Amino acid sequence: MAVETLPPKPQTIDSTLVLPFMKSAREVFNTMVGVATTIGKPHLKMQPAPTYDVSGIVGFSGNVVGSVVVSFQSSCAVALVKAFSGTELALNDPDFADAIGELANMIAGAAKKEFDLICNITVPSIIIGCGHTVARLSGVPCVVIPVSTPVGEFAVEVNIKPAK
Amino acid sequence: MAVETLPPKPQTIDSTLVLPFMKSAREVFNTMVGVATTIGKPHLKMQPAPTYDVSGIVGFSGNVVGSVVVSFQSSCAVALVKAFSGTELALNDPDFADAIGELANMIAGAAKKEFDLICNITVPSIIIGCGHTVARLSGVPCVVIPVSTPVGEFAVEVNIKPAK
Repeated sequence: MAVETLPPKPQTIDSTLVLPFMKSAREVFNTMVGVATTIGKPHLKMQPAPTYDVSGIVGFSGNVVGSVVVSFQSSCAVALVKAFSGTELALNDPDFADAIGELANMIAGAAKKEFDLICNITVPSIIIGCGHTVARLSGVPCVVIPVSTPVGEFAVEVNIKPAK
Repeated sequence: MAVETLPPKPQTIDSTLVLPFMKSAREVFNTMVGVATTIGKPHLKMQPAPTYDVSGIVGFSGNVVGSVVVSFQSSCAVALVKAFSGTELALNDPDFADAIGELANMIAGAAKKEFDLICNITVPSIIIGCGHTVARLSGVPCVVIPVSTPVGEFAVEVNIKPAK
């Protein structure tokens, strides 16, 4: 008798874990950076692919596990950090990494407050390197929220799930 | 009257937060990967500098905050993943990222058990990209533990501190 195997369950977008990031990204950039954003339609990231050049990664633990990556084109990151901090900073300036981390932290922190699940977030890790890839957690949908601004593109990649 | 400013406090290595990682890196690679390691002398990383090509980042929250990065030369990462999983995997294979994540998770998890401080660790984030930089948390010493193996070099970067 042939062993029957079930087809893999299609991954779907859990809007309760994604909508808070669309809202928080818009609010943080409007109020804290003073830059208008156009939030694009979220889509599933199916294959490992390079993100942009500068990424802030915030880890989640507790009743939500995984990570959220805010990833910028480098020219966009420099322009947004200038708008946020009032100073033009080089990519290798420690204050530049701190500013990217603060933006990622504000987006993740504001979104976390909207969850019904209790969780902790880590201080952000900042990655700088042209075309690096942040691998997604296997078995968890990675939802990409594209964001356009007058100074360039960035994305919020939501790769979290409720803990078992 | 001139304002007196204090010189910046020199950053020092807190051995209670570093020795557990030297021990856990040795043990994980000896027992789980079957590869002998030579642990080098830990040193402070003062400037942002590229780490290696493949990094697993584990975030800490609770009474210890920050992150620990296990970063490999790509050829070393491929060889160690082959020794660990029994299969040669390409850098863009999702199973490759999972294996690097599992190694980083085991090193961080075993070290965490040695701490007197209660903390949580996140699932690892995996970064793949030649010569990327993981910016360190400002105000926290980043201690680099260099590790040599017969198949190449890697480093454990410890950038954590007790929470206030």
